Amino acid sequence: MIREMTRADFEAFWPTFSAVIKAQETYAYRSDMTLDEAYQIWCELPAKTYVWQEGDQILGSYYLKANAMGPGDHICNCGYMVSEQARGQGLATKLCQHSQDIARELGFQAMQFNAVVSSNEVAVKLWQKLGFSILGTVPNAYRHGRLGLVDCHIMYKSLA
Amino acid sequence: MIREMTRADFEAFWPTFSAVIKAQETYAYRSDMTLDEAYQIWCELPAKTYVWQEGDQILGSYYLKANAMGPGDHICNCGYMVSEQARGQGLATKLCQHSQDIARELGFQAMQFNAVVSSNEVAVKLWQKLGFSILGTVPNAYRHGRLGLVDCHIMYKSLA
Repeated sequence: MIREMTRADFEAFWPTFSAVIKAQETYAYRSDMTLDEAYQIWCELPAKTYVWQEGDQILGSYYLKANAMGPGDHICNCGYMVSEQARGQGLATKLCQHSQDIARELGFQAMQFNAVVSSNEVAVKLWQKLGFSILGTVPNAYRHGRLGLVDCHIMYKSLA
Repeated sequence: MIREMTRADFEAFWPTFSAVIKAQETYAYRSDMTLDEAYQIWCELPAKTYVWQEGDQILGSYYLKANAMGPGDHICNCGYMVSEQARGQGLATKLCQHSQDIARELGFQAMQFNAVVSSNEVAVKLWQKLGFSILGTVPNAYRHGRLGLVDCHIMYKSLA
C-alpha cells in the first residue's frame, strides 16, 4: 500500500498536486509550476518519496529530505499531500508516522516543518497531535489564495 | 567598494570561504565542499551576491535570495561572510544594511535567517542590534566543530 514513488505514480498523482498548488492555501510552490518542475522538487531533490496506493488509486504522497546541509543535515523535512477524495480518513497520520519511521532508519534525529500555513488549522492540529510543537511563527509569510497574507509556523519533533 | 561578485572575486574570496566551512562553527555547509559547489550555492542560486572590496582585497561578501517559492517568495534570506583580517570593524553591519536596501529595491517585505548558530553570540547580538528578532530556536540543530550539538535561532526583520 505504501511504496516509493515512480514517475508514472507522480503523473497519476498530478491532478491532486496541481489542485493543491493552484489553490495556494498550503504549499509555497508557484501555482503555474509544470509537471516536470514539480516532479523535480517532489521526487528528484528529496532523499525519498513515497505513495499510498489503494487499488489503482494514488491517494497520497510524501517526500523526505535533509532540512539543511553539512553540520545541519541530521534534521529532516517532509511534505505531505492527500487527494481530495481521501481526506478526513487518517491518511495524513499514516503518511507522517511512516515518514518518522523512515527518517529514523536513515539516521535523522529530528523532523522540522519550515512553513506550516497557520490558516491550515487541520494540519497544525494534526501535527501537534503527532508530537510536533510550534517553535516559532513567521508573520505574514504566506500569500494565501483566499485570505491574503497569513502567518506560517515552524514545527518540530525530536525523533530520539 | 561594494559591487556584485564575479567568479574571479569568488576565487579570491575562497580562502575565507574555505576557512569558514572548515571551522564548522557558523554555516550549514559541508566542510569538504569544492570551490565549484560553493560558487553555485553562494553566487549562482541566489538572486544577488555582492562583495566588499578595499584596494585589491575582497574583505566580505553576502548573498540574497527568496527564502521560499511561490506564495512565500516575498521574504528573503541572506548569508554574510567577512575575512578574518576584517572582523570587528563593522563590515558585517555595512553588508547587512546594504542587503536590506537591495532587498527593499527587489520588493521583498521581510528578511529571515533560518539557522543562526546560537553559540555565534557576536552574530546573534549584531542581528538583534540591526532590528532582527529571534522567532524561535531549533534544539541541537547544528553540529558545531568544537562544541558538538548546539541550537540554531530563526531570526526575522520586517522591511516595511
